[in-house]
Amino acid sequence: MSDNLFQYVLRLGDDRLVLGHRLSEWCGHGPILEEDIALANIALDLIGQATLYLKLAGETEGKGRSEDDLAYFRDAIDYRNVQLVELAKGDYAFTIIRQFLFDVFSYHVLEQLQSSKHKELAGIAAKGFKEVRYHVRHSSEWVLRMGDGTEESHTRAQNALNELWRFTGEMFEADDIDRAMVREGIGADVEGIKPKWEAVVTDVINRATLSIPSDPPAMTGGRRGRHTESLGHMLSEMQIVARSHPGAQW
Amino acid sequence: MSDNLFQYVLRLGDDRLVLGHRLSEWCGHGPILEEDIALANIALDLIGQATLYLKLAGETEGKGRSEDDLAYFRDAIDYRNVQLVELAKGDYAFTIIRQFLFDVFSYHVLEQLQSSKHKELAGIAAKGFKEVRYHVRHSSEWVLRMGDGTEESHTRAQNALNELWRFTGEMFEADDIDRAMVREGIGADVEGIKPKWEAVVTDVINRATLSIPSDPPAMTGGRRGRHTESLGHMLSEMQIVARSHPGAQW
Repeated sequence: MSDNLFQYVLRLGDDRLVLGHRLSEWCGHGPILEEDIALANIALDLIGQATLYLKLAGETEGKGRSEDDLAYFRDAIDYRNVQLVELAKGDYAFTIIRQFLFDVFSYHVLEQLQSSKHKELAGIAAKGFKEVRYHVRHSSEWVLRMGDGTEESHTRAQNALNELWRFTGEMFEADDIDRAMVREGIGADVEGIKPKWEAVVTDVINRATLSIPSDPPAMTGGRRGRHTESLGHMLSEMQIVARSHPGAQW
Repeated sequence: MSDNLFQYVLRLGDDRLVLGHRLSEWCGHGPILEEDIALANIALDLIGQATLYLKLAGETEGKGRSEDDLAYFRDAIDYRNVQLVELAKGDYAFTIIRQFLFDVFSYHVLEQLQSSKHKELAGIAAKGFKEVRYHVRHSSEWVLRMGDGTEESHTRAQNALNELWRFTGEMFEADDIDRAMVREGIGADVEGIKPKWEAVVTDVINRATLSIPSDPPAMTGGRRGRHTESLGHMLSEMQIVARSHPGAQW
């Protein structure tokens, strides 16, 4: 059970660390100053949440790895995030559509995890749930604004949705670890969350005058360490400072 | 007077916008997760302060330029920041030493500006002063930790100080604009601040077992639009999204 729990918490942490990093790449490059600040704040929330999950993962594993060890000294193959969050940031529409698709997922996961039997996990989720409520509002407002905006913003948003759609299925794949965690009252039921996610996403996409792509959400493998090459590039950037000075007392 | 005020507030905004952007480049690349979050938070404070100053500058100018127009649609030659804040981020020691040198300056400037006769400026400064008190604590703790740390961290910190020292004099140069603003009870007296800055900086540098460089602080010109080539590179990065879609209704 403790290995299942370790893997489960690692997934929660990795999704947020990787997405937080991707979002932080917009720092100082947003379309308007206010949005620059908003995106960076959301990135900080996600990296903050990741820090808590990775700390708990390290304690659960019991081999003395800290949250920094897990963040900076694992290679891509040992990362357990869904591929959706690791894709290069693309244009602003791509970043926002991806964020929206993940935020709605995260909202429902954290809502359930707040009543997890694992008290520490429940506490981390409750803190994150407060934040993700704001994130969903922010990203869905932008989806509406872009989809129902100028012709160019509409086209960019639709292109982003077309590219991203095939990566959405992986969030709802439950394997033995997920099922064990649900059985023990610890984890969230992602299969049960899927229809709720679809309802919210479809509603916002429709109101934004965008269309749900018809190709099936087929890309998968992140939870088992199979990643796109984007993750490797991102990690080499993210990890360079820490790896250049292993164990350094700054 | 309103042109002096415009120029004066622009300088306050540009220092913080440029430094905030430089700091935001560390987003996701810090040596430890906690520090990543701290640096990004400080970057956000600075960009937030810059937004308020640039908004006030635009209103003072009275030509209808918003804070976004001033941030994204001016070229390097129209920026009014000191050169210290625009230098490329360098290694972590360079970033922290630069931050420390500016934080102590900003602390004293904002402390005075809180009682500016210009009520709106005083309000913006009061908000910023609360933040810079934390910034000074953060950067001076790191200066001590690096200077009095390992041989490598000490060497890096001393090298950074050697490179940066000649850029420190510009912060204390008062021109006609500064003097007019002091006379009217609006601006801060940077010449009077200089000895206070030197006292704090010398104390921390000494306790960090680092040495004040002997070469004179000679670099200057930022307040008149003379910048190092680093600023141009930084602005082209920072402005690309906004300039690609001028006037876009996102």
